[in-house]
Amino acid sequence: MSPQITMSTPLIWILNGPNLNMLGMRQPDLYGTTTLPSIEENCHLHAEARGVAVDFRQTNHEGVLIDWVQKASNRTGDQKVQGLIINAAGYTHTSVALMDALLMLDIPIIDVHLTNIFSRESYRTTSLIASTALGVIAGFGQNGYILAIDALIPHVKQKII
Amino acid sequence: MSPQITMSTPLIWILNGPNLNMLGMRQPDLYGTTTLPSIEENCHLHAEARGVAVDFRQTNHEGVLIDWVQKASNRTGDQKVQGLIINAAGYTHTSVALMDALLMLDIPIIDVHLTNIFSRESYRTTSLIASTALGVIAGFGQNGYILAIDALIPHVKQKII
Amino acid sequence: MSPQITMSTPLIWILNGPNLNMLGMRQPDLYGTTTLPSIEENCHLHAEARGVAVDFRQTNHEGVLIDWVQKASNRTGDQKVQGLIINAAGYTHTSVALMDALLMLDIPIIDVHLTNIFSRESYRTTSLIASTALGVIAGFGQNGYILAIDALIPHVKQKII
Amino acid sequence: MSPQITMSTPLIWILNGPNLNMLGMRQPDLYGTTTLPSIEENCHLHAEARGVAVDFRQTNHEGVLIDWVQKASNRTGDQKVQGLIINAAGYTHTSVALMDALLMLDIPIIDVHLTNIFSRESYRTTSLIASTALGVIAGFGQNGYILAIDALIPHVKQKII
Amino acid sequence: MSPQITMSTPLIWILNGPNLNMLGMRQPDLYGTTTLPSIEENCHLHAEARGVAVDFRQTNHEGVLIDWVQKASNRTGDQKVQGLIINAAGYTHTSVALMDALLMLDIPIIDVHLTNIFSRESYRTTSLIASTALGVIAGFGQNGYILAIDALIPHVKQKII
Amino acid sequence: MSPQITMSTPLIWILNGPNLNMLGMRQPDLYGTTTLPSIEENCHLHAEARGVAVDFRQTNHEGVLIDWVQKASNRTGDQKVQGLIINAAGYTHTSVALMDALLMLDIPIIDVHLTNIFSRESYRTTSLIASTALGVIAGFGQNGYILAIDALIPHVKQKII
Amino acid sequence: MSPQITMSTPLIWILNGPNLNMLGMRQPDLYGTTTLPSIEENCHLHAEARGVAVDFRQTNHEGVLIDWVQKASNRTGDQKVQGLIINAAGYTHTSVALMDALLMLDIPIIDVHLTNIFSRESYRTTSLIASTALGVIAGFGQNGYILAIDALIPHVKQKII
Amino acid sequence: MSPQITMSTPLIWILNGPNLNMLGMRQPDLYGTTTLPSIEENCHLHAEARGVAVDFRQTNHEGVLIDWVQKASNRTGDQKVQGLIINAAGYTHTSVALMDALLMLDIPIIDVHLTNIFSRESYRTTSLIASTALGVIAGFGQNGYILAIDALIPHVKQKII
Amino acid sequence: MSPQITMSTPLIWILNGPNLNMLGMRQPDLYGTTTLPSIEENCHLHAEARGVAVDFRQTNHEGVLIDWVQKASNRTGDQKVQGLIINAAGYTHTSVALMDALLMLDIPIIDVHLTNIFSRESYRTTSLIASTALGVIAGFGQNGYILAIDALIPHVKQKII
Amino acid sequence: MSPQITMSTPLIWILNGPNLNMLGMRQPDLYGTTTLPSIEENCHLHAEARGVAVDFRQTNHEGVLIDWVQKASNRTGDQKVQGLIINAAGYTHTSVALMDALLMLDIPIIDVHLTNIFSRESYRTTSLIASTALGVIAGFGQNGYILAIDALIPHVKQKII
Amino acid sequence: MSPQITMSTPLIWILNGPNLNMLGMRQPDLYGTTTLPSIEENCHLHAEARGVAVDFRQTNHEGVLIDWVQKASNRTGDQKVQGLIINAAGYTHTSVALMDALLMLDIPIIDVHLTNIFSRESYRTTSLIASTALGVIAGFGQNGYILAIDALIPHVKQKII
Amino acid sequence: MSPQITMSTPLIWILNGPNLNMLGMRQPDLYGTTTLPSIEENCHLHAEARGVAVDFRQTNHEGVLIDWVQKASNRTGDQKVQGLIINAAGYTHTSVALMDALLMLDIPIIDVHLTNIFSRESYRTTSLIASTALGVIAGFGQNGYILAIDALIPHVKQKII
Repeated sequence: MSPQITMSTPLIWILNGPNLNMLGMRQPDLYGTTTLPSIEENCHLHAEARGVAVDFRQTNHEGVLIDWVQKASNRTGDQKVQGLIINAAGYTHTSVALMDALLMLDIPIIDVHLTNIFSRESYRTTSLIASTALGVIAGFGQNGYILAIDALIPHVKQKII
Repeated sequence: MSPQITMSTPLIWILNGPNLNMLGMRQPDLYGTTTLPSIEENCHLHAEARGVAVDFRQTNHEGVLIDWVQKASNRTGDQKVQGLIINAAGYTHTSVALMDALLMLDIPIIDVHLTNIFSRESYRTTSLIASTALGVIAGFGQNGYILAIDALIPHVKQKII
Repeated sequence: MSPQITMSTPLIWILNGPNLNMLGMRQPDLYGTTTLPSIEENCHLHAEARGVAVDFRQTNHEGVLIDWVQKASNRTGDQKVQGLIINAAGYTHTSVALMDALLMLDIPIIDVHLTNIFSRESYRTTSLIASTALGVIAGFGQNGYILAIDALIPHVKQKII
Repeated sequence: MSPQITMSTPLIWILNGPNLNMLGMRQPDLYGTTTLPSIEENCHLHAEARGVAVDFRQTNHEGVLIDWVQKASNRTGDQKVQGLIINAAGYTHTSVALMDALLMLDIPIIDVHLTNIFSRESYRTTSLIASTALGVIAGFGQNGYILAIDALIPHVKQKII
Repeated sequence: MSPQITMSTPLIWILNGPNLNMLGMRQPDLYGTTTLPSIEENCHLHAEARGVAVDFRQTNHEGVLIDWVQKASNRTGDQKVQGLIINAAGYTHTSVALMDALLMLDIPIIDVHLTNIFSRESYRTTSLIASTALGVIAGFGQNGYILAIDALIPHVKQKII
Repeated sequence: MSPQITMSTPLIWILNGPNLNMLGMRQPDLYGTTTLPSIEENCHLHAEARGVAVDFRQTNHEGVLIDWVQKASNRTGDQKVQGLIINAAGYTHTSVALMDALLMLDIPIIDVHLTNIFSRESYRTTSLIASTALGVIAGFGQNGYILAIDALIPHVKQKII
Repeated sequence: MSPQITMSTPLIWILNGPNLNMLGMRQPDLYGTTTLPSIEENCHLHAEARGVAVDFRQTNHEGVLIDWVQKASNRTGDQKVQGLIINAAGYTHTSVALMDALLMLDIPIIDVHLTNIFSRESYRTTSLIASTALGVIAGFGQNGYILAIDALIPHVKQKII
Repeated sequence: MSPQITMSTPLIWILNGPNLNMLGMRQPDLYGTTTLPSIEENCHLHAEARGVAVDFRQTNHEGVLIDWVQKASNRTGDQKVQGLIINAAGYTHTSVALMDALLMLDIPIIDVHLTNIFSRESYRTTSLIASTALGVIAGFGQNGYILAIDALIPHVKQKII
Repeated sequence: MSPQITMSTPLIWILNGPNLNMLGMRQPDLYGTTTLPSIEENCHLHAEARGVAVDFRQTNHEGVLIDWVQKASNRTGDQKVQGLIINAAGYTHTSVALMDALLMLDIPIIDVHLTNIFSRESYRTTSLIASTALGVIAGFGQNGYILAIDALIPHVKQKII
Repeated sequence: MSPQITMSTPLIWILNGPNLNMLGMRQPDLYGTTTLPSIEENCHLHAEARGVAVDFRQTNHEGVLIDWVQKASNRTGDQKVQGLIINAAGYTHTSVALMDALLMLDIPIIDVHLTNIFSRESYRTTSLIASTALGVIAGFGQNGYILAIDALIPHVKQKII
Repeated sequence: MSPQITMSTPLIWILNGPNLNMLGMRQPDLYGTTTLPSIEENCHLHAEARGVAVDFRQTNHEGVLIDWVQKASNRTGDQKVQGLIINAAGYTHTSVALMDALLMLDIPIIDVHLTNIFSRESYRTTSLIASTALGVIAGFGQNGYILAIDALIPHVKQKII
Repeated sequence: MSPQITMSTPLIWILNGPNLNMLGMRQPDLYGTTTLPSIEENCHLHAEARGVAVDFRQTNHEGVLIDWVQKASNRTGDQKVQGLIINAAGYTHTSVALMDALLMLDIPIIDVHLTNIFSRESYRTTSLIASTALGVIAGFGQNGYILAIDALIPHVKQKII
């Protein structure tokens, strides 16, 4: 029987930015056929196996991303968010406002990208998000999300105990 | 009798960005007295005469523009969008997220501006939108929208047949 | 007895951008323990004493800020907005769209910042907002809002008469 | 019967710069099979239908382009030039001398390019010509010339009356 | 009866840099008709009302400004300087030496400018002084001096007690 | 019983550049107490569990790193290298020669860094190595090596079959 | 009786670049009503009075300017050119080829401009010609040519003897 | 008999900046053997012959230069200054304060330099003074002062009448 | 007996840009005493010995160079041009128009320079021509032309067969 | 009978930098199938025919290249090196140390590259080596080595006599 | 008995710029407790032991520094200055005028700084003074003055003989 | 009798980078006739007199320099290194790897250069080494080594006690 999510299960939020909802639905030759729902499902399966829970979200709105980041530390219920994985897509390179929101968080943040942004156009190689993050994982497609969950495990597990 | 819009009439979306709803209502000496509704009306009249239909929208929100661009290729009804005219105003120069959304579209895009942005302040001469577009039309006031519709005709007409 | 707000009382709008709602709730050692509601209350008290009224707002959304700026000159009721104080936080440095909205306003604008942004990271020293403003006040914490109200007094009072 | 060119027919000059005479004769996969003479012919036909006349020229020499621009306002005969369409090709990005000549003109100028120069190499995105023009049209191939004629119509027509 | 200046009255120095002595005497259409002596008088009146004293000075010499800044913390008499307001004019943007002198001060400094320097020529937007100051006030004409005195009050008052 | 390394076990080379041999031996408060041998040991254990083998090396010499990269595809024995993990440390940002060697490889490369180099000094944020890599993992300390092995698994496993 | 031009009269060439032939004929409010022929006449009169002769030329062609500069030292007749005054207009800032031709000359060169180019647009403040010249005179309208002749006198006179 | 200086003789001030007092006394191979006093004498002789008077000054102090510029328009006696020639030497390139003082003057200014500064080190080619001046004369040694006086004549003479 | 030029002899055009006609006639200490005609003669002799023919030209006009490049692929006679050697001199670094003409050619191009331009002034190290060429040869004086002919041999010979 | 290498035969060293040993062994579609040993053999054959000898070397180590350059002028035997051909590959663009070593040599140096580096990525267009060389040859594949030997002949031959 | 200062004792001037008079009197935790008078005393003691004399000065005025530099080579008495040590503090990075004065000196100059300016803020790493100096000593506190005296010894001693 | 080196004598390492072994052997007019061995000998003599010992080394290899820096703090014998003097020559400006190694050292470092690198070519004025050093000494030839030893004395002596 698979592990159960309980009140004490560490919770990780995975936030996705603009256009990621289109994944796998357009230009499959460039971005592959994986869709965001299938990535979400894999994240849930992998998290469960590792004893953590994930909350997976997407929005095209910069302001909504900021709202979510603020809520990530406001949770008044029994399940506090203990780690944040964020793929801010196009906002990664331009949003000082989102960067400010992340700077206020006191939980570990991982900056994830499907492609290796550091080998693309020059305006993509500056990541405002990266400067707020514990670490960066880029270039491994949907597998990057799985690796990011693994990378957070030692940080969220030790917090519970 | 004027041509009729039918199910097979090619559809063009015209998206307008922040502050364009204020057109003609403030600083008429600088921006003229034309209002956005009158531009919309002229676009409908001209489109009808050329045998195409237009859907004309405005928003101040970057995220809403991205939502619309994504929907432009998702239309599941009988009238698929076959061309996009966009005047992203202030987001033209800063929104990588909007540029990403446009890059995913497989229909022709035209980047329109009321004024000749290439002879204005330096931070306005870089257009992220232009790099995703078939072409650019700038400096002709509301007439730029009419020219953009004409520029799209050969591209949307051949698609129908 | 304190002065009363009447129909002829000059009205000032105070707009606050992203993450300012978190003030005093996180990292008190860095940002102090003052909260945005307490700043709002002080602004109301000070404005009343000076014979003006304030409308105090906050949002994380760039588009909402633009909506508000546009409305500041559209008020059709009896109380027209006569001055604008804006702390656009992270959008201060990146939003050409917000700058365009402010450029269309014909009332005095003051660009306020809690910290002295001109002595911080280099990407914060470029203020697109400042170029649209009557003046800039930065580095005085919540007192900056009080100083900004005082700075607007001669401009909003003479308008009424 | 088609309209006739008379002494009072508005005249538009269309100037083409270096290498445009090679159009359609080399690398047809890159630049298409349209030749400059066929563009010229289409311009004449379209102009006639719109009630204006065009004078269409090409040269590889920067000095000759400047001579022509100067002559555009010197015509002493009965047919004065009332609008200028210019595709300066390679000189678009480097010729301060040509820009100076255009700045002296008091008739409307349109900066036309076959390709969307704003999505090409960086040294092509700076257009010295654009800063002297009423507007810019780029990316629509030979159709750009037709659109430019249409864009000039309201300006040259009102001058005659 | 107005408050009296006593030995325990907090003292603020107001230093003015090059060309400010010409205020109101040349180009009144650009700089207004206010003269520096009238600003000085208003500062004295306002300071008296707020229970502080001011010492108001002007010089065209960079070295003299540095001498004064150094003396501001050297006063051996009974009236120690407790706050500094400085409008360094043209030296604001170039004087590393003046900046060094200010960095050595342990009293609050306010960087004041008559005009909104942040919306002027680019070589004026870099303020070396600002980086040493508690805060910046710019764009409010002579009223900026009054606002600066108010901004210093909480800092100089608490020092006395 | 743990899996055995056989001739058909996929082989991964892990190359470490200058100063990494000092890890854990100097400034433990900054770089932690983990030593390179202990990282190597953890890599062997983790690789064994995942059914792959690793060859772990360190050098301070740019030329030796290039020699190794060249050998990674020259192995004439029965165990061909099928993936490369490289932490080039200080050479990451300056060595065009090493980048050229990596560009010649036809096996997947991962660019690993102990710290989040993208939030450090600006001359460290340019990674010549990243442009040759499948992906980048930075900021997770020694765990980054483990994550890199996991990221290579799908690439090296499918090669064997 | 005025001095006579003889075989031994020192000869100065005055070369004028693109668009200077339009002087006084267009935009008289900006460039004044002086024409190039009247400047030429004044130069002849002034030169005669100073005992030198001038040869005054204008062209819109960069190549022709280079031809002339080359000829300036090739004259095989009895009257060798002994000084060069050049107003290269738009080519001043861009022509490396013209600069190369001037670098080959072994007679004194003066770089003249009607307007004060050093207070205009930034792309005009770089003068390739200036680096080849004895000196620069800018901002005195047609009088600049007269001053340039005077500045050459000591150099061309001493050559004759 | 030479012309006499009377109350109505136009007066020109010639200001010299740092190190010019050393002229001719050090490195004669580089700067020539002319001394500043001999330049002053030549200026007086030439001015007298042209019917104007000159007041010739030198200082190493930036503040003194500013004092003098301010006084140039303050003269309350019968001889008002009608033109300013300034060689600010090293302050030419760095003094925003001196530039501000010159901007306040309403008499013609000429920016003079002994050497052709536009062909020297790059930090010397930016002249803050030039942007305030009627014109620039550089590269003619002491003769530049004589040319500058001639260039001012038409401006100061017409003022008297 | 030397080889004969026949209809099937491969033809190479050698184009020379501005000022190269002055070679050896001015500043022999800097540029040597070799003249362009003697270089031409050596090229003919060397070409004959290698079984190819050369057509050697010079012009000071940018437009003429473009005309020639266009003609190089238009030859309708029996001797088609099979290789191009170009020393564009001053136009090498600035002419986008010439670069465009060369980009349209489908024969091998060699960019030759008498001096080693890569060790000279910085504005000479950017060669627009080089980006269109098969290769670059610089720094060997007239011998560079001979080396360029040799470098073209394998390319033009294999074309004939 | 072929010429013999004797004590008086001029000696040329040909130094090859990092990764050139991989030539022809990887990515033949990009770099061709020629190997470094075959280039070496061709160099020996060609040198022999021209009456000179070559010493051909390759290394991946920057320090070894410097050692060799230093030895090139230290040879104490009877055969002194009289010319140096160097293809420093990746070190071409980054090694100030290698540049320093070459600057100390008093024999002619030629900077050779297989590809036309001036039309590749921008970080490859800066050649530190070029500034120390007699000339540059780039873009002709292995033939570039042969051309470089020819280019050295006149320099090494005249040294012997 | 210590050495005596006689007429033939070499003389070194040590000039100190703005704010150095405050040394040790403010922020002792940052700048140490050493005062300028104690540095002066140590310089005298050390100089005496080495057989040279020093003249130690400080000023906050740029113009005074220039006056002193000029006087350093003007001394008409029996003790000529033979070496200059200068710590120009804030003027180090901005004063072209001071640099010009130093360039005119024909005695050795040493540029001294208490702190290692080359590891501080970027605007401090550009030293205009350094380019005029024999050498630079930075980062050794007051000991830097002692080292500078030692560094001058071989230069001033050989002058006397 | 000179002081003796004992186990407790402080030890200073002096590391020299590429090409310094050639000192005095090539271009004596530029670099003088002093050789590295003679510098080494002077260092030993001076160190002995000051009661310290030196270990003097040179290499052309970047990796070897790093190895040595690492060993400088690893010495397990009785004589620990207490200070480091490094002249990294060409690696000074490019080696991030060497800078990293120096950053790990906890003993004082001095950055020495024979020439005044801050007045040479711009690519030499950026010293990565300087940012890791206690101080910089440049421009005094071999004497710079002696000054560096003196500068280290107070730091290494106090460590022993």
